[in-house]
Amino acid sequence: MSASAHNHDREEALAFQPKFDASGLVTCVATDAATGDVLMVAHMNDEALRKTVESGEAWYYSRSRKALWRKGETSGHTQRVIEMRMDCDQDAIWIRVEQSGAACHTGRRSCFYRKVDAGEGGLRLSFADAERVFDPKAVYRK
Amino acid sequence: MSASAHNHDREEALAFQPKFDASGLVTCVATDAATGDVLMVAHMNDEALRKTVESGEAWYYSRSRKALWRKGETSGHTQRVIEMRMDCDQDAIWIRVEQSGAACHTGRRSCFYRKVDAGEGGLRLSFADAERVFDPKAVYRK
Repeated sequence: MSASAHNHDREEALAFQPKFDASGLVTCVATDAATGDVLMVAHMNDEALRKTVESGEAWYYSRSRKALWRKGETSGHTQRVIEMRMDCDQDAIWIRVEQSGAACHTGRRSCFYRKVDAGEGGLRLSFADAERVFDPKAVYRK
Repeated sequence: MSASAHNHDREEALAFQPKFDASGLVTCVATDAATGDVLMVAHMNDEALRKTVESGEAWYYSRSRKALWRKGETSGHTQRVIEMRMDCDQDAIWIRVEQSGAACHTGRRSCFYRKVDAGEGGLRLSFADAERVFDPKAVYRK
């Protein structure tokens, strides 16, 4: 089959055939089912994908820790999956979730707590929705 | 400076210091400013980031074509950026956009036109919001 026939199949068929990258991962975007805000961008391997669908809770693969990871297993701030979608070329997943507490390890509801704007001399960040839901030092201490 | 001090700085400071991957890219999620739906997941290099902020329209870097790309330059379906945000570790961007027409090259409004569910014998896809806004054969023909 030609490359373009492969692509057409991935885009228009209903077979689940994720296009994992060289590390065996797809990108996953989690949005807040209530507000539409993006909570986080992370990665899933094949096992994380399957565990997420089977359990109805988000599982990811941590590239830094090189480990499968149930979201909230340390913090208790789990994500209940309302809907999972696959993109056209099957290398990205979108999950709409009910977020318990906060998604970000810094304690914020969303990882996207800073805006990017043009400033003098280049781009700069400013805080937006940056108040903490929890104290990361208390939650993640050993 | 230690790795953890570097991380703290990236997370809590207001310096724009994107963490590009080995290919010089960050992940970018575009959502519909009106509905909160995820329209697409793509990549930006440093130039795409800067052009996006300067112009107020989304620019990406195509990994397959190895080229900078103004969204809509062929189709006319541009993205006006309402807000740009950076995530905690500065390797992902979220833009809320006003999408003209459709984001997906298949002609759908969003690239995420298929749901993932558990089926007999494994995961499967089903169409959702899959009607086409435009005919890709007419738009992209040479």
